[in-house]
Amino acid sequence: MPHVDVTEGIPGIVSLMDRYPDTARPLNELAQALLRADGGLTHAERELVATYVSSLNRCVFCTQSHAATARHLLDDAVVVGQVIAKGAGAPVSRKLKALLVVAAKVQQGGRGVSDADVAAARAEGASDRDLHDTVLIAAAFCMYNRYVDGLATWAPDDPAVYDRIGRRLATEGYPRGEPALAFA
Amino acid sequence: MPHVDVTEGIPGIVSLMDRYPDTARPLNELAQALLRADGGLTHAERELVATYVSSLNRCVFCTQSHAATARHLLDDAVVVGQVIAKGAGAPVSRKLKALLVVAAKVQQGGRGVSDADVAAARAEGASDRDLHDTVLIAAAFCMYNRYVDGLATWAPDDPAVYDRIGRRLATEGYPRGEPALAFA
Repeated sequence: MPHVDVTEGIPGIVSLMDRYPDTARPLNELAQALLRADGGLTHAERELVATYVSSLNRCVFCTQSHAATARHLLDDAVVVGQVIAKGAGAPVSRKLKALLVVAAKVQQGGRGVSDADVAAARAEGASDRDLHDTVLIAAAFCMYNRYVDGLATWAPDDPAVYDRIGRRLATEGYPRGEPALAFA
Repeated sequence: MPHVDVTEGIPGIVSLMDRYPDTARPLNELAQALLRADGGLTHAERELVATYVSSLNRCVFCTQSHAATARHLLDDAVVVGQVIAKGAGAPVSRKLKALLVVAAKVQQGGRGVSDADVAAARAEGASDRDLHDTVLIAAAFCMYNRYVDGLATWAPDDPAVYDRIGRRLATEGYPRGEPALAFA
């Protein structure tokens, strides 16, 4: 049972955004700015970083929602599963592998990202913007995951729920204005 | 040296917000919504939660900036130092002690917040809103701290820098529009 009162039947972060709109607005704006930015990493790559960090934090709702979003953006379920299972060992570009290493360091704590990690990503073509966005996506999911699980929100078992969320986020981006309705 | 190019002489998160305004906007709006909300926890209590979590994450820039902000709001340097040193052992209200326990659990990972932690906070008068805001402040500082340290930004040694930041944040809140200028 969630630690605070939310509307029954609304899952995960959506239930909190529905009840607390003042914080929902910047939380959604941040997700849109980070995960749907144009230039640098693709939208799918951004969702893969979010999925991977959420899986490291063992946040079921966020992992399944963003995995579904990445599947819709990529039309490739296999690589998404492999990023969850193997991180930088997944069959992604060498640049994304190096950035997934950075993301995993950020998940452990910001002080772990070394000059060597950064140099390795740059050697594969990562720009300042790619490094910045990777670190901030990883950091942001350390927040979203803790928000969702720290208040013990509901993570549905039904894969169809996540597929619906993922399709919506892949096609429409992150909600503005009416967070709960946008996921309905 | 920071992992990405920023303007020399601008410290911590401010240097990143100066260079990356698209994400600065929601990051500042979230800070304002969480740390300057009216009702429930006082502004000083919110800053103490932020300071405590930042200290657990060993983020020097954030700890010193928010400690200075709390000092300006409270006009009490002793209690701020004790929250950093002792967390829930500091001489704060019984409600805030219980919420600092929750915040420390969130810092470790969202899944650690137990029904017993929540019941203990409620027994001291914590409302749904207090619990929500504490969990989200703690989660958000797990993001801000990782952003600041994951990109190896500059944390000045000079206490006067933090005092200036703290005075500004205590009196004017979090910047809108021109993040770097607002800290200048």
